[in-house]
Amino acid sequence: MPQKDVVLTGDRPSGPLHLGHYVGSLRNRVALQGRYNCFVMVADVQALAANFDNPQRIRTHVREVCKDYLAVGIDPTKTTIFVQSRVSALFELATYYMNLVSVARLERNPTIKEELQHKSFAENVTAGFLTHPVSQAADITAFKARYVPVGEDQLPLIEVSNEIVRKFNRVYNTDVLKEAEAVLDKVQRLVGIDGKTKASKSLQNAIFLSDSVDVIKQKIQSMYTDPGHIKVTDPGKIEGNAVFAYLDAFYEDPDGLENLKTLYKKGGLGDSALKTLLNETIQTLLGPIRERRQSITDDTVDDVLEAGSIHASEIASRTLAEVRSAIGLWHP
Amino acid sequence: MPQKDVVLTGDRPSGPLHLGHYVGSLRNRVALQGRYNCFVMVADVQALAANFDNPQRIRTHVREVCKDYLAVGIDPTKTTIFVQSRVSALFELATYYMNLVSVARLERNPTIKEELQHKSFAENVTAGFLTHPVSQAADITAFKARYVPVGEDQLPLIEVSNEIVRKFNRVYNTDVLKEAEAVLDKVQRLVGIDGKTKASKSLQNAIFLSDSVDVIKQKIQSMYTDPGHIKVTDPGKIEGNAVFAYLDAFYEDPDGLENLKTLYKKGGLGDSALKTLLNETIQTLLGPIRERRQSITDDTVDDVLEAGSIHASEIASRTLAEVRSAIGLWHP
Repeated sequence: MPQKDVVLTGDRPSGPLHLGHYVGSLRNRVALQGRYNCFVMVADVQALAANFDNPQRIRTHVREVCKDYLAVGIDPTKTTIFVQSRVSALFELATYYMNLVSVARLERNPTIKEELQHKSFAENVTAGFLTHPVSQAADITAFKARYVPVGEDQLPLIEVSNEIVRKFNRVYNTDVLKEAEAVLDKVQRLVGIDGKTKASKSLQNAIFLSDSVDVIKQKIQSMYTDPGHIKVTDPGKIEGNAVFAYLDAFYEDPDGLENLKTLYKKGGLGDSALKTLLNETIQTLLGPIRERRQSITDDTVDDVLEAGSIHASEIASRTLAEVRSAIGLWHP
Repeated sequence: MPQKDVVLTGDRPSGPLHLGHYVGSLRNRVALQGRYNCFVMVADVQALAANFDNPQRIRTHVREVCKDYLAVGIDPTKTTIFVQSRVSALFELATYYMNLVSVARLERNPTIKEELQHKSFAENVTAGFLTHPVSQAADITAFKARYVPVGEDQLPLIEVSNEIVRKFNRVYNTDVLKEAEAVLDKVQRLVGIDGKTKASKSLQNAIFLSDSVDVIKQKIQSMYTDPGHIKVTDPGKIEGNAVFAYLDAFYEDPDGLENLKTLYKKGGLGDSALKTLLNETIQTLLGPIRERRQSITDDTVDDVLEAGSIHASEIASRTLAEVRSAIGLWHP
């Protein structure tokens, strides 16, 4: 029986997961499990690199993110959910890969560049932040991931990882490391409820999977629509209208949605009615997720993470042994 | 009973050890053992950073360097001799420290700057090479080293390590990490037999501890003296004269040596007689070391390195657990 291909995904536990994650990746992970050998990483080491002086935030969200996973239906009997810092082979792999990539190459990485602009600590980039793509290469290769679902902005990271794979295999005359294929998310990024940027944990413009009925309702009521659309009878714009962006992502009747758009553009559909519809749609989606979430105890989460981390460590240690042997490090 | 202070030293296994190592550090390590809790690291990970494309060289010299240690009298019952790559906690510690030091700080490091000039790959500095001081901070702190004997050129590395210690303890509000004190080698660097630069594994201008009687004799005969000192009766220069530098380091009768210098300066002492004296001195020193070296089997070396690495791992893992707990990483 041929082995199933490995799919690696994950999230930084720097905040609760939101609808952007759901539509961009979580839904897809649930669909993939069983068909692929899925690993989902709670990337606490990565999160710490961007939040080294706020570890409390990471500590809290390791469990919360895992609860989100379980609540949306990621099944730990089919998917290995693990904590990055518990897989010690990853640290050692990254160290050997550091020798195969130049500082100049890392500084050219557009994802890093963009994040640097965003974070306003360009003057003070830490070594941990700069070398993040090397750490990611360790994650990908440790599990011999064949597919890595990513957003478009993550493509350069996969490229660095594959460069490291090729260089490693060439320098050490081996084929133990495998290149991975980036799989682009089909759904475009979900905008924030402010309509301006992508939904983001840090910008607080997202609807979280763990939000209560009231908070969801309130957030939807505050959503950005079309500031020129004042009276119900005014013609309204669809483009840039966050409510329609969310309906596009979550409303399950595409034909009905087309009719609503036509009506809105012509004039005759109020924001209030539209938001009521979106609220119903989102409450229907998140209701069962919230219910499942509330039934999950911290102990359950810890058990899932520990079992997953032990399994992930076994796989990663096997790869590390191959890597050490390919380099030819001393062993007794 | 108060615990003995920890002393950490080590060498990159990129070539056999030579008289420069002996006079600069090995001799001192033998003197320190018993009085201090000594750790001696065979730094294969560090060596690999500078020789990633020549791992065979590292592989060979891990054992050879350990033989040198045992041959000069480093006693594995008193000193923990270990292999860096076998202490996996070091990789993880370095990763957390990467967040506490900026790329700019690492690039300013004079040791790195100098090595870059020397290595002629400045255009292509690897991440592993740049982050070497962080890796060294992991080595030092893992064992809570109080003293680190170093050459003057290594002082900036100790400074980076202590900066990381202070920042870690401040950011994570702890005192688990300890600053280390650099202890400068008392003996100045031994020049190469070419008289020009320091004795160096890579420049092949050194007398190795494992050299045979004939090779030692031949190297001493080829040593740089004073090119203006042609006839025995010519006045000769002491300064820059490699033979006198070696006699300064190894000849055990300082008064006798002063008389020889006076005679040489005045004219009346030939290079040949001088080299015969140095040859006798060095053969007397290295004879018993070579003999002991030849009696050490690869199996003995492997046993010593494995036992030492297991012990070092226990200590380093204890520090890592404290570090993880200070950061507050998730644990089940």
